[in-house]
Amino acid sequence: MRDLSHDRALLSINSITVKAWSLQQLVEGCARAGIAAISPWRDIVQDCGVERAAKLIRGHGMTVTGLCRGGMFPAADAASRRAALDDNRRAIDEAAAIGAQCLVLVAGGLPKGSRDIAGARTQVREALHALLPDARAARVPLAIEPLHPMFAADRACVNTLAQANELCEELGEGAGVAVDTYHVWWDPNVEKEIARAGKNILAYHVNDWLVPTSDLLLDRGMMGDGAIDLRAIRAMVERAGYRGHCEVEILSAKNWWTRDPDEVLRVCIERHQTVV
Amino acid sequence: MRDLSHDRALLSINSITVKAWSLQQLVEGCARAGIAAISPWRDIVQDCGVERAAKLIRGHGMTVTGLCRGGMFPAADAASRRAALDDNRRAIDEAAAIGAQCLVLVAGGLPKGSRDIAGARTQVREALHALLPDARAARVPLAIEPLHPMFAADRACVNTLAQANELCEELGEGAGVAVDTYHVWWDPNVEKEIARAGKNILAYHVNDWLVPTSDLLLDRGMMGDGAIDLRAIRAMVERAGYRGHCEVEILSAKNWWTRDPDEVLRVCIERHQTVV
Repeated sequence: MRDLSHDRALLSINSITVKAWSLQQLVEGCARAGIAAISPWRDIVQDCGVERAAKLIRGHGMTVTGLCRGGMFPAADAASRRAALDDNRRAIDEAAAIGAQCLVLVAGGLPKGSRDIAGARTQVREALHALLPDARAARVPLAIEPLHPMFAADRACVNTLAQANELCEELGEGAGVAVDTYHVWWDPNVEKEIARAGKNILAYHVNDWLVPTSDLLLDRGMMGDGAIDLRAIRAMVERAGYRGHCEVEILSAKNWWTRDPDEVLRVCIERHQTVV
Repeated sequence: MRDLSHDRALLSINSITVKAWSLQQLVEGCARAGIAAISPWRDIVQDCGVERAAKLIRGHGMTVTGLCRGGMFPAADAASRRAALDDNRRAIDEAAAIGAQCLVLVAGGLPKGSRDIAGARTQVREALHALLPDARAARVPLAIEPLHPMFAADRACVNTLAQANELCEELGEGAGVAVDTYHVWWDPNVEKEIARAGKNILAYHVNDWLVPTSDLLLDRGMMGDGAIDLRAIRAMVERAGYRGHCEVEILSAKNWWTRDPDEVLRVCIERHQTVV
């Protein structure tokens, strides 16, 4: 069995980790570093042009562990909800075009002015049902990523693996979860819910929780610099049967985004081997 | 049945909401505003002197809805864990002296350098068992307050009402929970777990979740200024049988702490009536 933490062939770089780079720079930079997998955000794919992006990625033999991100479903009116679904269908097409293994979905938070989180959760569930046939037709599985509860209001009302697993079990084929250490490490049920997710784990993201954390969104840590027992979570993911990539996703405005991206990749490689 | 949101006799002010005030100023300020209940933090009780504090509080006929706070149990070595227990025993004595209805407990996070959150949770459980006989003897119930998961590393590894309820059910008489809207509002199981807590609800804290939130600890909102459906949570707490006070606890370095505390109390009274 391949060891997720020591096989560089299973390391993937999420584009937000090296935010300054275009898709071409990401592909070429990863190739230089001996990294064979990426997970781009939609903006850099669109900036590149989807066809050209697909060609670039194929040309370098890169695996695409996911496209980040669809979702953001809840909205205050029906027209906005339809617009969100349409945008997600475009995201599915983009994911298919670049051969992404999944489309990562961030549910979305409360519609502007709303305090009805149960209602937002219902909207997410309905949107997933509406989107699933398109995802199946395009053979792009939807990876529901629960976000940390501190994002419940403004980014994602799916905040636990239990919620994501429940949605997956209801949706069936074509739906899975993205397990991100930053979002799930604190959960007393993390071990049980990772086991429950089992073959539905479509993506596995690593990073760290810094103490102190100076910004809710943009102060994630490099693996090894924070409080998360990454080895323990990797063991859970492996026990659940996951054999895919380990994707580094770090949003870090004041530290990693200010550094030379080539250096960031070197640190990712080293930490992937030593602490993940 | 008294309506928790409209009866000023059931409004309590947590001292951190008006951080600039000493205990004497808090007691006198609340009396001026027609507020008959407070929940002081230990520092201002100690600054006042416990006996003098008790006399002041009695003299104004104030109800003490809780003493904030004990807990902070996990530590890297046995001596530090014993020191934490000793400090909690002093907190129980202080709570008894001022006639507090409960001692609010914040569990504590990871010991310095540790990434073992399961281990920290075991330490909390063991500390609670060790402390319970003292709490029972002093007739000061322990109110376990789950903190928002964003505090799991540095403040509290008890992060859901489910965890707190489980601890209470194991501990039995003398242990209960503090339900704070800021910490529980995002939880998909909040309704179920508030119902489960039932008569174990020893304290009910209100405030709001701001969008955006600029600081993890010190940017809580005044009721009505954020994303929490406070009425819905009050209804849950009432359905669970709670008939106690509604305690305003707001940590707000850049807004409410910079204002005249008398003005803050006026806003608390108004929002308690209109949005809680």
